[in-house]
Amino acid sequence: MKYRAILYVISLLLIFLSFGMGVSSAVAFIMDDPDVLVYRFTGCAVWTFVIGYILCKLTERKRGELDFGSSTRDGFVTVALAWLVAVIFGSLPFITCANLTTYDAFFETASGLTTTGASVINNDLLTSDGTPLGKIVESLPYHDPANLPLPAGLLFWRCLLNWLGGVGIVFFVLLVLPLLNVGRGTQLYNAEVPGLKTDGGQLTPRLGSSILYVTLVYLFFTVLGGVLYHYFGMGMFDSVCHALSTIATGGFSNKTASIGYYSSPGIQWSVIAIMFVAACNFSLVLKVVFTGKFPYFADEEFRFFTGMVVISILIITPLVYFSSPEVISVTGDPAFLPRTVSNYLRIVAFQVLTIASTTGFCTSDYELWNCPVAILIICALMFPCGCGGSTAGGMKCSRLIVVGKHLINEIKHCVYPRTIASVRLSGERIDDPLVAKTLAFVLCYIAIFIAVALMLTITEYRPNAHYRQLTEPNLVQADTDLEQTQRDITSTDSTAPTPKPYGTTIDVKTAFGASIAALSNIGPGFGHVGPSGDYHWFRPISKILLAITMITGRLELYTILVLFLPSFWRK
Amino acid sequence: MKYRAILYVISLLLIFLSFGMGVSSAVAFIMDDPDVLVYRFTGCAVWTFVIGYILCKLTERKRGELDFGSSTRDGFVTVALAWLVAVIFGSLPFITCANLTTYDAFFETASGLTTTGASVINNDLLTSDGTPLGKIVESLPYHDPANLPLPAGLLFWRCLLNWLGGVGIVFFVLLVLPLLNVGRGTQLYNAEVPGLKTDGGQLTPRLGSSILYVTLVYLFFTVLGGVLYHYFGMGMFDSVCHALSTIATGGFSNKTASIGYYSSPGIQWSVIAIMFVAACNFSLVLKVVFTGKFPYFADEEFRFFTGMVVISILIITPLVYFSSPEVISVTGDPAFLPRTVSNYLRIVAFQVLTIASTTGFCTSDYELWNCPVAILIICALMFPCGCGGSTAGGMKCSRLIVVGKHLINEIKHCVYPRTIASVRLSGERIDDPLVAKTLAFVLCYIAIFIAVALMLTITEYRPNAHYRQLTEPNLVQADTDLEQTQRDITSTDSTAPTPKPYGTTIDVKTAFGASIAALSNIGPGFGHVGPSGDYHWFRPISKILLAITMITGRLELYTILVLFLPSFWRK
Repeated sequence: MKYRAILYVISLLLIFLSFGMGVSSAVAFIMDDPDVLVYRFTGCAVWTFVIGYILCKLTERKRGELDFGSSTRDGFVTVALAWLVAVIFGSLPFITCANLTTYDAFFETASGLTTTGASVINNDLLTSDGTPLGKIVESLPYHDPANLPLPAGLLFWRCLLNWLGGVGIVFFVLLVLPLLNVGRGTQLYNAEVPGLKTDGGQLTPRLGSSILYVTLVYLFFTVLGGVLYHYFGMGMFDSVCHALSTIATGGFSNKTASIGYYSSPGIQWSVIAIMFVAACNFSLVLKVVFTGKFPYFADEEFRFFTGMVVISILIITPLVYFSSPEVISVTGDPAFLPRTVSNYLRIVAFQVLTIASTTGFCTSDYELWNCPVAILIICALMFPCGCGGSTAGGMKCSRLIVVGKHLINEIKHCVYPRTIASVRLSGERIDDPLVAKTLAFVLCYIAIFIAVALMLTITEYRPNAHYRQLTEPNLVQADTDLEQTQRDITSTDSTAPTPKPYGTTIDVKTAFGASIAALSNIGPGFGHVGPSGDYHWFRPISKILLAITMITGRLELYTILVLFLPSFWRK
Repeated sequence: MKYRAILYVISLLLIFLSFGMGVSSAVAFIMDDPDVLVYRFTGCAVWTFVIGYILCKLTERKRGELDFGSSTRDGFVTVALAWLVAVIFGSLPFITCANLTTYDAFFETASGLTTTGASVINNDLLTSDGTPLGKIVESLPYHDPANLPLPAGLLFWRCLLNWLGGVGIVFFVLLVLPLLNVGRGTQLYNAEVPGLKTDGGQLTPRLGSSILYVTLVYLFFTVLGGVLYHYFGMGMFDSVCHALSTIATGGFSNKTASIGYYSSPGIQWSVIAIMFVAACNFSLVLKVVFTGKFPYFADEEFRFFTGMVVISILIITPLVYFSSPEVISVTGDPAFLPRTVSNYLRIVAFQVLTIASTTGFCTSDYELWNCPVAILIICALMFPCGCGGSTAGGMKCSRLIVVGKHLINEIKHCVYPRTIASVRLSGERIDDPLVAKTLAFVLCYIAIFIAVALMLTITEYRPNAHYRQLTEPNLVQADTDLEQTQRDITSTDSTAPTPKPYGTTIDVKTAFGASIAALSNIGPGFGHVGPSGDYHWFRPISKILLAITMITGRLELYTILVLFLPSFWRK
């Protein structure tokens, strides 16, 4: 392996990351964070830069060796190592400026960079500002014992991690994956992007301008989001942060109640619009720029995604309207949310798009909707998610289309064994090996989903306690009461001793919810990790497992899976 | 389509079925069922025979046209129609001799013939014999208003349906599927069976003797089971019935508490052994007969299935032993079941094999084990299930092996793009189209599983009632109390009016549990259809849906799926 070439790439990444930290510490300074925080933040940035710069200088002269086209293995190692290093250095501010443990910081950073948006920062860790709902993440605790409001630098850093991860992943899928030969499965995305054709590993002359255009498009929608949010009444700082995490389909928010904190329909509809754009293939925007035409509806994947989202909303809205007589806003403020169709439509559209685009914001907890059909549809949306070449996670709609068409062909083949039908996507024929790859990808996805859920129930096994007593202290009293009632009903002998607590683990719903939420980079899942829950109560080993799952999902599985092959490391 | 040829096959089936009914009515007579029942049962048999005979005579002269090799479409139509007719006529005794509705009888018969073993006959329909646990199915109600014990004919008919379905499916998979060109996916099973080579649709001279041997093997294990059960203390009649349903991996039992009713470890271990044999490929037994060798451990699928079962038992037993301090027997009798390792081992082994072999007997309710890991493993076992060429349902282990090996190959392919690795099963190379078929099959399976669960939540939607109030009247009181407690905890205003009941549907667990239990032909699922539950409370439309799902799963999906293709019916 060409270690120097690999380390050179890593060093560039570190320098890049240090600039991000520098911007965040500048934000911390501008937003009047306490001096000690600004110093520490700047320290993180400087150290990261220094390490990156030294590494860069040490490896620079070997630059000519950097040739991923000739060694796929080096490419895989570079990508995996780059993510590991980025997550480790990215977690420094959380460790130094907030009282997060190493594991928590690792999880939070991985969640940020993979645009998952799952957070370990929960209400217990926060200084409440007195309001019972919409508790504010604004007051992240830090090492200083005195709790001061607004460590804005950290809030900004979280959202910036989302943003960097988002733009990084678009480049990764459109440019790096084809070079790594994981390409076959991703040809689906970039086959028709003008200027992005990589022609078997050879970078075309137009590649440079493509990167520029993708970055410009990404910046444009970031700015558009920020302007819209601010126009509809969100504070300047919050607008910037939410704009960063929306376009990345990340989902980190400055408020515990997420977008639900803002009672403006305008803000919520703006977020819905930006989430939708972020879940569509960026190359479509590039096509608009390059050709001046509007090719969205010619793209089969776009039609499928739009149809999926619209139909889900149309099914769920009336169901929720009739089955949830109570107000379903996360703020729980009936004055803000009278029971009108438009309010329900907005809330349902928001949750559907937040899941389908894998953003993970929320304005309502779908688990409280009392509507199993809605839960099932949302559960189903967690697998296909957005379009290829977007910042969204999940299996991608194009893969689902290919698999669906292939299955129908297979069934037809039983009746007409002599017909040879091929799968077409947007009119382009998908050749058989690519179809087989796509089938394998989808099955891998399902297998990892199940395996991670199973591993979580094992890592979260607690030998001598009821689960809830450990994780939700405020519910212990309620639980005991319910259990007492249950005993009174089922047993006539009311003097029976309280049963000894025995070993237990997380429930099935939470295990599968956390697994798919991490794998598809969504954020909220079901049960204890639902929209109202968080991830702080997981054990360190589970957090590491979930972080690896996020990265695996983010890098289209194979990029990480190959590392588990014994033969990959041989020779 | 060659309607006469198709009808001729159907007529033979009816005559065959009428003999089964005849045997059952003889059993009813011997077991002293009330005369009215014997008459009605005999009536069903006679009518079925007469209709079959007339149909046979009408179509016999066109016998030469019966040639499935030349028309695949006719083959599919015949198989589907045969199942429909068999289920309709098989349900006649339930309609005439017991007070089951048409839908319930249809469901019960489909469940019997597909060897699912899911029952609509629940405790409410039964005359309790006074014991609170182990309520007896012995007293099936019938049209006569006076409840008389033991309509033994019907009990026997249920188990006979299991048995006929089981032997039928072995023939279907080993002999009919290859002719229908669904073959590609089933070449996995019969490729190496001596005497069962069908050589591209041409029946070999040895086919006749193969059918004979398969039947003899099936009969041998039926008799062996009956002898073992009776030896360990089961009554003669019950031994016969349970022997019929065990070898078929059916799961209909004469007792509500299923095998848990019998407190003899010997009986339970015998059932475990027969279930294990029934889940293995019958062609292995044929090989023993034909070649005199013992080829079991040379068969990769057998090794996989055995390993899967043994590992599951070894993981679950200690977990359940330590997490369930209470007795976990379904009879709930601590005297019978002291908390010893051997008892826990037997109970766990029984539940693991009843699921892995898709039999569906039970001696304990795994949902009460307080062990989510056990639930997850059991849930995972519901998909692969037994081996190909057995009476077990599910995806079959061989398919799982092929898919798993292919996925590993795909991951390797990313690193070594020039290597071409092929999938091997028991040393035999599986060619690429067959691998693609298998991948498609597994994905189809998962898709149907999800689709049926979703449809069930829709068909079971009840607009104006809490779910439990409709289905579990005895729990309404408990529910209300719990809700009251919940309200007392969450609300300080104790004078708040009781919330109006709003529309709701079955929970996610029940929906998915029923879906996989039907598709894999298991019987018990999770939630309301778990080992302690039953299917009587489903709406007619859901029962029809589940019955179709059972038949689809039983016939290896494609045989039924082709019927939903519009192009299948054109021209």
